Amino acid sequence: MDISLDHSDVRDLVLGFLHEDIGRGDVTTESVVPADASGRARIEAREAAVIAGLPLVRACFELADDDPIEWQPKVQEGGSAEANETLVVIEGRLGAILTAERTALNLLGHLSGIATLTARFTSAIEGTKAKVVDTRKTTPGLRALEKYAVRVGGGTNHRSGLDDGVLIKDNHIAAVGGITSAVERAKTSVPHGLKVEVEVEDIAGLEEAIAAGADVVLLDNMTVDEVRACVDRAAGGVLLEASGGISLDNVADYAATGVDLISVGALTHSAPNIDVALEVEH
Amino acid sequence: MDISLDHSDVRDLVLGFLHEDIGRGDVTTESVVPADASGRARIEAREAAVIAGLPLVRACFELADDDPIEWQPKVQEGGSAEANETLVVIEGRLGAILTAERTALNLLGHLSGIATLTARFTSAIEGTKAKVVDTRKTTPGLRALEKYAVRVGGGTNHRSGLDDGVLIKDNHIAAVGGITSAVERAKTSVPHGLKVEVEVEDIAGLEEAIAAGADVVLLDNMTVDEVRACVDRAAGGVLLEASGGISLDNVADYAATGVDLISVGALTHSAPNIDVALEVEH
Amino acid sequence: MDISLDHSDVRDLVLGFLHEDIGRGDVTTESVVPADASGRARIEAREAAVIAGLPLVRACFELADDDPIEWQPKVQEGGSAEANETLVVIEGRLGAILTAERTALNLLGHLSGIATLTARFTSAIEGTKAKVVDTRKTTPGLRALEKYAVRVGGGTNHRSGLDDGVLIKDNHIAAVGGITSAVERAKTSVPHGLKVEVEVEDIAGLEEAIAAGADVVLLDNMTVDEVRACVDRAAGGVLLEASGGISLDNVADYAATGVDLISVGALTHSAPNIDVALEVEH
Amino acid sequence: MDISLDHSDVRDLVLGFLHEDIGRGDVTTESVVPADASGRARIEAREAAVIAGLPLVRACFELADDDPIEWQPKVQEGGSAEANETLVVIEGRLGAILTAERTALNLLGHLSGIATLTARFTSAIEGTKAKVVDTRKTTPGLRALEKYAVRVGGGTNHRSGLDDGVLIKDNHIAAVGGITSAVERAKTSVPHGLKVEVEVEDIAGLEEAIAAGADVVLLDNMTVDEVRACVDRAAGGVLLEASGGISLDNVADYAATGVDLISVGALTHSAPNIDVALEVEH
Amino acid sequence: MDISLDHSDVRDLVLGFLHEDIGRGDVTTESVVPADASGRARIEAREAAVIAGLPLVRACFELADDDPIEWQPKVQEGGSAEANETLVVIEGRLGAILTAERTALNLLGHLSGIATLTARFTSAIEGTKAKVVDTRKTTPGLRALEKYAVRVGGGTNHRSGLDDGVLIKDNHIAAVGGITSAVERAKTSVPHGLKVEVEVEDIAGLEEAIAAGADVVLLDNMTVDEVRACVDRAAGGVLLEASGGISLDNVADYAATGVDLISVGALTHSAPNIDVALEVEH
Amino acid sequence: MDISLDHSDVRDLVLGFLHEDIGRGDVTTESVVPADASGRARIEAREAAVIAGLPLVRACFELADDDPIEWQPKVQEGGSAEANETLVVIEGRLGAILTAERTALNLLGHLSGIATLTARFTSAIEGTKAKVVDTRKTTPGLRALEKYAVRVGGGTNHRSGLDDGVLIKDNHIAAVGGITSAVERAKTSVPHGLKVEVEVEDIAGLEEAIAAGADVVLLDNMTVDEVRACVDRAAGGVLLEASGGISLDNVADYAATGVDLISVGALTHSAPNIDVALEVEH
Repeated sequence: MDISLDHSDVRDLVLGFLHEDIGRGDVTTESVVPADASGRARIEAREAAVIAGLPLVRACFELADDDPIEWQPKVQEGGSAEANETLVVIEGRLGAILTAERTALNLLGHLSGIATLTARFTSAIEGTKAKVVDTRKTTPGLRALEKYAVRVGGGTNHRSGLDDGVLIKDNHIAAVGGITSAVERAKTSVPHGLKVEVEVEDIAGLEEAIAAGADVVLLDNMTVDEVRACVDRAAGGVLLEASGGISLDNVADYAATGVDLISVGALTHSAPNIDVALEVEH
Repeated sequence: MDISLDHSDVRDLVLGFLHEDIGRGDVTTESVVPADASGRARIEAREAAVIAGLPLVRACFELADDDPIEWQPKVQEGGSAEANETLVVIEGRLGAILTAERTALNLLGHLSGIATLTARFTSAIEGTKAKVVDTRKTTPGLRALEKYAVRVGGGTNHRSGLDDGVLIKDNHIAAVGGITSAVERAKTSVPHGLKVEVEVEDIAGLEEAIAAGADVVLLDNMTVDEVRACVDRAAGGVLLEASGGISLDNVADYAATGVDLISVGALTHSAPNIDVALEVEH
Repeated sequence: MDISLDHSDVRDLVLGFLHEDIGRGDVTTESVVPADASGRARIEAREAAVIAGLPLVRACFELADDDPIEWQPKVQEGGSAEANETLVVIEGRLGAILTAERTALNLLGHLSGIATLTARFTSAIEGTKAKVVDTRKTTPGLRALEKYAVRVGGGTNHRSGLDDGVLIKDNHIAAVGGITSAVERAKTSVPHGLKVEVEVEDIAGLEEAIAAGADVVLLDNMTVDEVRACVDRAAGGVLLEASGGISLDNVADYAATGVDLISVGALTHSAPNIDVALEVEH
Repeated sequence: MDISLDHSDVRDLVLGFLHEDIGRGDVTTESVVPADASGRARIEAREAAVIAGLPLVRACFELADDDPIEWQPKVQEGGSAEANETLVVIEGRLGAILTAERTALNLLGHLSGIATLTARFTSAIEGTKAKVVDTRKTTPGLRALEKYAVRVGGGTNHRSGLDDGVLIKDNHIAAVGGITSAVERAKTSVPHGLKVEVEVEDIAGLEEAIAAGADVVLLDNMTVDEVRACVDRAAGGVLLEASGGISLDNVADYAATGVDLISVGALTHSAPNIDVALEVEH
Repeated sequence: MDISLDHSDVRDLVLGFLHEDIGRGDVTTESVVPADASGRARIEAREAAVIAGLPLVRACFELADDDPIEWQPKVQEGGSAEANETLVVIEGRLGAILTAERTALNLLGHLSGIATLTARFTSAIEGTKAKVVDTRKTTPGLRALEKYAVRVGGGTNHRSGLDDGVLIKDNHIAAVGGITSAVERAKTSVPHGLKVEVEVEDIAGLEEAIAAGADVVLLDNMTVDEVRACVDRAAGGVLLEASGGISLDNVADYAATGVDLISVGALTHSAPNIDVALEVEH
Repeated sequence: MDISLDHSDVRDLVLGFLHEDIGRGDVTTESVVPADASGRARIEAREAAVIAGLPLVRACFELADDDPIEWQPKVQEGGSAEANETLVVIEGRLGAILTAERTALNLLGHLSGIATLTARFTSAIEGTKAKVVDTRKTTPGLRALEKYAVRVGGGTNHRSGLDDGVLIKDNHIAAVGGITSAVERAKTSVPHGLKVEVEVEDIAGLEEAIAAGADVVLLDNMTVDEVRACVDRAAGGVLLEASGGISLDNVADYAATGVDLISVGALTHSAPNIDVALEVEH
């Protein structure tokens, strides 16, 4: 899902998120704030961040009300914000702004957290040929949005799900007795447009995978030295993905080995939330 | 939503999560693993945790396949697990187990993270009268599950959404010119079964809130000393909720003031994911 | 649901209602009325009424067709109409007007019936402090709309469902052995923003409820004299709701007791339908 | 929809109705009633009635919980009950019974009201050849259920919607200049399996309708004498339906004219609710 | 469903079709075609055809993107196109055009195939009183669209489903022991607006059907001579439908018998796909 | 979608198909066939065929009724049937069998048509290394089922949609000025698990594609001789897919060239329907 493209999907998602929070109605705002009051509010980051989710934030305010919202962005999607920098100013019916506020901020804080962490990883390996890729360790229900945030942060997406990529893992291998058998089974029956990737635990595994015809090999939980040895051994014949135990502290060392891809589950399952807030101007 | 009660909602949620990952089919498993192979797998925690989400994990495996799954729990929902402790053993069609694995683990790691963090907060204030409560700072789409995980971890839920509780915040107050006006407007028009809670920033605000008839007062971003002064001032006439800037380091101090409720957004927006894994036994 | 606010919910409801009536298409209109004929029609009340549902009526005509409808209201939502008074004039494609007619009138007649009956109750107790409130005895599927009509008629809404208010009834009390136990259980576990309301059958029950800490007490099926005694006994310490056996004939007597709330199930389950009709002008 | 046949539709309807009432959970029952308490309850009619809706009532209790419900009917669907007669006894988890109670009773009271009123009409014309038929004046969202209740009460259904029957009304006729033109247009373009029914206001209209080839003629708002004259004039050549202004007081007179069908909008839009209640036995 | 009328249904259908093809995104177009490139494309028929489906084609391109599409039709819906004739020219964002292309063409080729075959049948019997009608032998999920294409091709629709027409077939007759019994059962219980049609296999069956009061008789798998004999025998007293074994080769002979309706399952289950293509102009 | 695996998807699909045909109820069967009559019916092929769709047929009968159906298959899914051979015998409530009949047969005839045509293609090239593959030229809404039928007939699936495979076509190439540019753009941005396939029109295109790093090359509308030249030129370095103008008459010649894949749009858009029927046994 490209967020700027696929309007109807984003609309359905955001309506669902609004409905989760609003339920049968915002009893506080409806009782306190005059229905016809209009206002002006700014959304700001409380800490430095790479911003992701502004199109969703806009949709929250637009879908919460029949009346139009004026949308004045101060930071672009994917841009960097300093602490206390205003990201966007919105004007419209005050009640609608307050009703949509929490849903909008929850999205913005979560997705900006992912983009910010991704940007730190990609920045750490700049100058190498390696790409930072995400995994399927995403929050259930939010995969498309979280993978979008990875892209906004400069990362690259791995497969989206079990149907658009092949990755033979240890449990698959064990089920059929070995790397060779698993790779051969995959090569004869998966659609011809998909590459076959297989996970290995050592250089012997890599050699078996190459011999069996794998297109991509995932080097699981290897040290930097082991990965370097695998890169030398593969000599460009297959794509190599390093995975497991990779952090901001060591990612540059992994990238320096010449590995093609570095996958990091933490991008989506453990990115710290960015603190964002909405302030009505008086 | 009580997870053990409301079967049809859980079923729809889990089917949606499975569909997000599986899409048109698990091409790896379908091509590599014989369709009729059965197997036995254990799910284990890789780090100490309070476990939440087992009913959802079970639903993942049951809904991924027509064939039945044998479910042998080793840890109860809400129980504590040591690092590398087995949480549950499952037996069934191997292909189905591998296909549902990632969705199940994503849920388990996320919800156990919330329960574990909540348990650390509740444990830190044991012996005081205060309760740890969550907020509406949840991941969009997962509020019911995340608030369930807070309960599993021993926490207490604040309102579920904008429709089942009244909380007048700074922006509401500003819109009508003051605490007194905001509280009075709420008291005359919200359904009679809802208490009126209002956010204040200092003891003067508390006094105004009490005078206006508020039932609950949220003490926003106050120091421990300020909260203690508010507790003394309120003298039990209203419920008091401390919120903002509260961490594991200082929560015991806040609780010692005699405040009734301590709300912590981090329970749901920043709980670290618990590392869990599924291992097929061979 | 505030009807003027929550456009997407109203749209989905009305589309569902139209679909129920139109099914695969209006074979009569499509075969008889030229597709490009335009027309002008007025909707009128055949009897005096308080009008509720005009926004839904408008949505029926707008959603039944791609072509725009001109909407000329003659009576405001919530306004009173005399018998044979025109409520609104619409102009547009004649086929679409005839296809949407029945769905629109069914909504208008049903909701205006509720608003009209509610207005009769509220009018009967004018000058007292009591409020007329509805119940959960609504038509399945139409609760939000029926509670909206109660508001249009000048009534006040009780809780919307089982999740946004606490009302301990006789069967709950029996299950735990008494009022005291039931109220205490509720007070320790419901979210702190909800008041605890309990149903009692006599003044002894009221006293027990107050002692247990109830916030609101429902006086079930009491006579006017009994209610008056309860009001005296409570002396403002709790909110009191009279319920059961209250009709237009005796509601003023109940209100005169000083009770806070008077709930009437008939508002939503037995309001007579208002006779409304659409006439095409030739 | 035959309720006993079409299980998946009934299930979806009832789940929607339960969800409307329960929302995020029954906070009262969950906090007061022990989760594992079981109980026995009876549903009784508080006034004499023809009972309709028991299959839906059963579905309410079954779908509200994972645990099974024991269902012991004392009155058959469509049977008559005296005031205070027990309709059904249910046993099961007490919490689930209390949570589903209101939705179940709302359905039962509403549908039994329709069945009871229909039975009074059909009883009033027993011995004549006339049939009592319903109209499209139903509560939006409940047409299938309300038409089912009409059948339970001994009535006959008119068309279900705009797509499965042709009825040319005054506005259609006016749009094309006359009965003859309208009937002829319909006969040339509606699917061949549908009869053409047309509404007329006097005997001249009837004659024109017959000459134009109508299959059924609706006699709108005619007196008993006018209807009798129409019956004589038609002499069996077309089906005749009397409609408008027909009540329990005069329906026997209309039926005695020899008219084939008597349609009564009040069956579905104004049937008084039947008072039903659930009592937990202690 | 009249396609030009019922916008929201068409929108939902087309969104579903687009989603089926696009899934999580068009990886080819997104990676190859610049996001801001605009273009101009023509859709052309590769063989002579009666064109059906242009409104759906337009909806495909409009719904695939937020940006507007310029739509320049060269052939009207229902018009004839020569081989290689341009049907429509579209201008807009090139990526969106390529993404929606296949869904649009699949609809256009399928529906134009039905319209073209229908037109050949209707043309073959021009000058007779017979109408070509479709059947319920449609592609699951596409009945409304396929029956629309039959109308576009000049054909007439039989009933839309099991609920808006009565057709007693051989298996129904066998279940109750004979034509007479089956017709009589239907006449007493189907809604009065529906005619009763019954299938017979020979002239004796026709006679029994007429005697039992059938309104329409389907002559199943009869030769032209048998149909002619039935027409003579019925003498206009009932509608007659010939069905079974009717092809373009013999349809004129069947029509010449004076039969009223000729139903052809092949219109919807076996119409050859029309070859259509989209060419981007450079 | 593997039909035997993914029960909930099949259930939803079949319920939708049944609903399309049954609508508000089967008025013929409900009025003619006694509700409690049971019966035995056989489904037979009227012509020789490879059978696909039996699991869906079974689901039709099971989902149309609450009562169980006895299912006695005589031919396996994917098996061959002679003309007039019985495929399955079912026993159950007769009304339900007749109500579900048409939906079941429409699915069976359509999918068996695809499987039969596919089997003819795969049989024609037996002994060569080529595989017969389908395309995205499927009936909207039925892609998963039609691709399943291709597999049942022995064919191989190409990508399922735009998101799980890359195929650069002529219009993509034109948009960026050439094969080289298009392939390079794809290789840098599509997920690493997807191969890059590109369509070429002549051997020069093939050479450019290979040089640019394509993984698969689609040879569009080439003669057998041209394909053979491409096979020689590629020498196994890339996968080759022949497409366009391939029929049962020439597919063996194409396969003999040594091409890897032969794609045939007609498998899904033009397979003749197989004539199947249900006969109730008396």
